Amino acid sequence: MTLTNTFKKVKAASKTLALVSDTVRNDILNAVADAIVAGKDTILKANAADLEKAGKDYAFYDRLLLTPDRLDAIAADMRHVATLPSPLGRILKDRTLDNGLHLRRVSVPFGVIGMIFEARPNVTFDVFSLCFKSGNAAILKGGKEADGTNRAEVELIHEVLRRYNVDPSVVELLPATHEATGELLTAVGYVDLCIPRGSKRLISFVRDTAKVPVIETGAGVVHCYFDESGDMAKGQRIVDNAKTRRPTVCNALDCLLVNRKRLADLPQLVAPLAAKGVRLHADAEAFEALSGSYPESLLEKVADDNVWGTEWLSMQMGVRTVGTVDEAIAHIDKYGSGHSESIVTEDKAAARHFEDMVDAACVYVNAPTSFTDGAQFGLGAEIGISTQKLGARGPMALEEMTTYKWLIEGNGQIRK
Amino acid sequence: MTLTNTFKKVKAASKTLALVSDTVRNDILNAVADAIVAGKDTILKANAADLEKAGKDYAFYDRLLLTPDRLDAIAADMRHVATLPSPLGRILKDRTLDNGLHLRRVSVPFGVIGMIFEARPNVTFDVFSLCFKSGNAAILKGGKEADGTNRAEVELIHEVLRRYNVDPSVVELLPATHEATGELLTAVGYVDLCIPRGSKRLISFVRDTAKVPVIETGAGVVHCYFDESGDMAKGQRIVDNAKTRRPTVCNALDCLLVNRKRLADLPQLVAPLAAKGVRLHADAEAFEALSGSYPESLLEKVADDNVWGTEWLSMQMGVRTVGTVDEAIAHIDKYGSGHSESIVTEDKAAARHFEDMVDAACVYVNAPTSFTDGAQFGLGAEIGISTQKLGARGPMALEEMTTYKWLIEGNGQIRK
Repeated sequence: MTLTNTFKKVKAASKTLALVSDTVRNDILNAVADAIVAGKDTILKANAADLEKAGKDYAFYDRLLLTPDRLDAIAADMRHVATLPSPLGRILKDRTLDNGLHLRRVSVPFGVIGMIFEARPNVTFDVFSLCFKSGNAAILKGGKEADGTNRAEVELIHEVLRRYNVDPSVVELLPATHEATGELLTAVGYVDLCIPRGSKRLISFVRDTAKVPVIETGAGVVHCYFDESGDMAKGQRIVDNAKTRRPTVCNALDCLLVNRKRLADLPQLVAPLAAKGVRLHADAEAFEALSGSYPESLLEKVADDNVWGTEWLSMQMGVRTVGTVDEAIAHIDKYGSGHSESIVTEDKAAARHFEDMVDAACVYVNAPTSFTDGAQFGLGAEIGISTQKLGARGPMALEEMTTYKWLIEGNGQIRK
Repeated sequence: MTLTNTFKKVKAASKTLALVSDTVRNDILNAVADAIVAGKDTILKANAADLEKAGKDYAFYDRLLLTPDRLDAIAADMRHVATLPSPLGRILKDRTLDNGLHLRRVSVPFGVIGMIFEARPNVTFDVFSLCFKSGNAAILKGGKEADGTNRAEVELIHEVLRRYNVDPSVVELLPATHEATGELLTAVGYVDLCIPRGSKRLISFVRDTAKVPVIETGAGVVHCYFDESGDMAKGQRIVDNAKTRRPTVCNALDCLLVNRKRLADLPQLVAPLAAKGVRLHADAEAFEALSGSYPESLLEKVADDNVWGTEWLSMQMGVRTVGTVDEAIAHIDKYGSGHSESIVTEDKAAARHFEDMVDAACVYVNAPTSFTDGAQFGLGAEIGISTQKLGARGPMALEEMTTYKWLIEGNGQIRK
């Protein structure tokens, strides 16, 4: 392992974080925000060099691009994190036993969090602020296309940390290589938690490689079931918002499940999508129901089952016909990724059954999955959306970046 | 994978558990307890056959042995679990957003829990009761020496489940082979959480093999630091209780760290251990301090550092001299397993510093680590002691066998 020395430095630095008060943490976050604003030129210069190598793919270029306005927004986000309550030292349980032992379960940092992300240079500052605020050291592994920008950002953070006499190794950026990802995922004893953000391919590599605890984030194969009793006005708004508000994010709708008894209403339900150019991949029954009303150029009959389970991340969507709420639940069970699922229904029993039986981080009744977001949930800034069940589930904000320990105080009691 | 059909059956059965109320769950647990008492002969016959093959190692034989009294105790434990509050459906957060969306974070089962354990036939009933009460299906992989007993036990449980029209596949016992362990640990999509209980060797195999989320339990390299200001009477009781109450369990003391300024008091501190035959492995300074007072036949000078970090599970203990509380913390950081650690001190600042800096599930001040136990903590029955930070940490009782989901109820709101 060529990075062992880096891992050791970060682990040692993580221990010193326990001695930094929340007030000082907040001061440092505000100082980093100041430095971002003051140091725009340096960061933008590094970013320009990255962009020059990036080529012309618009979406990719746009994700990589920093501007003075975007840096102001990043600084504002960092100042916002400084205003949030500390997630540390919360007393989660407190009891005194009959023998006088005083037990407390108290929230504490994980220690060292490894973060793997692709070419989005805002993530470096986001992750630093959330890790630092929650008392965790961070080992960052960014995409190679943003490496120059990331290095300039981490250097800026290090300068501020040095000014406050905090060990700068509380945040380190690894080389932007595949090998570094592998080393990070197997750094047993140095990394307490690893959070990969990115593509299905990355998540699958992580699953195969990781020997440290991992929280998988981001993959969202998201459904909306329009029930026999679904309200048309609500359904239209919900499907439209979930699909088209931001089609490239993980909470965007991928597949509409429609109750067979409402097939006649399907054209109306998806009408708002046509104007926005959403391409529908419909099963035979839905295709027939839509033929003639939905634009032919945007309508495709599903040839095989490969469509189901696709995370589109674009203006496309599956449409499938089901007979009952249980058929909808079975489809979600088979094809969903445990991220966000919704039902549109006026039937309270159906809503309750859907909530009980759907196994996902976020289950919606008469609301769009686009709400799955830490800030929307009132949790403050988020580091990602967990699709697993161990540790955090759903939006991971500051509280979800802590673990706990038990403190037991006695006076010489012994166990019989 | 030869066990895929079993995994599928259990996963399907786990879904049906959501439809079983807590009252019915408790009825079934009581009915299984009745069946254990009524079916003693069958279980004891199977156990006798296992014992015959087991050989003469007393400790091993005793762990494997069931008796009518032990079965009564197991049945009583199961009835006790039935009296505990359900860990499901707890509202962990509840808020209504300004836009009227109603958010609840609600505790739910993991789904399917895989349990790997060695030749202790009481574990089968324990695990079943805790999984069933917490709404989880269980896939058991027991030790081969107890396989006949385990099969008789699971058959008994299946009979009761059938009587209550619950899918018996909510608990299944895998073949007692190494291959089955491997399949269980890689059953992605079928197993939501795997909890291995057993030796260091098993834990290490799990770490190398697992592709499903795992909670590591059981390995306890446990320290007690006797501080400069430690009270002798408390220290004697605490060290004695932590070391000798049950030396074979994971919370038993493995290493006493003594402040150099209290070396003269060391003979008195460990005096209660001599009568019980505890063999001490002491560093040079501690060896010198103990020579002449501690029985020569039970005292050994440590030749190399291999002694530190040993989990003895027997009447042996390391003794090491340190200069400060920070040296004690550094030793624990290097050699501890994150299970249970303690300090004996009258110095409040030292106690606080130890609590803040020691990274372990349970940190004790003036109390012995022998208290690390779900029932002692007032959590009810436990399935194990987690030494990791993701998910449960410390004693895992019913609440720790649940995850949560977010339920979001609206009325057609959309996100801007």
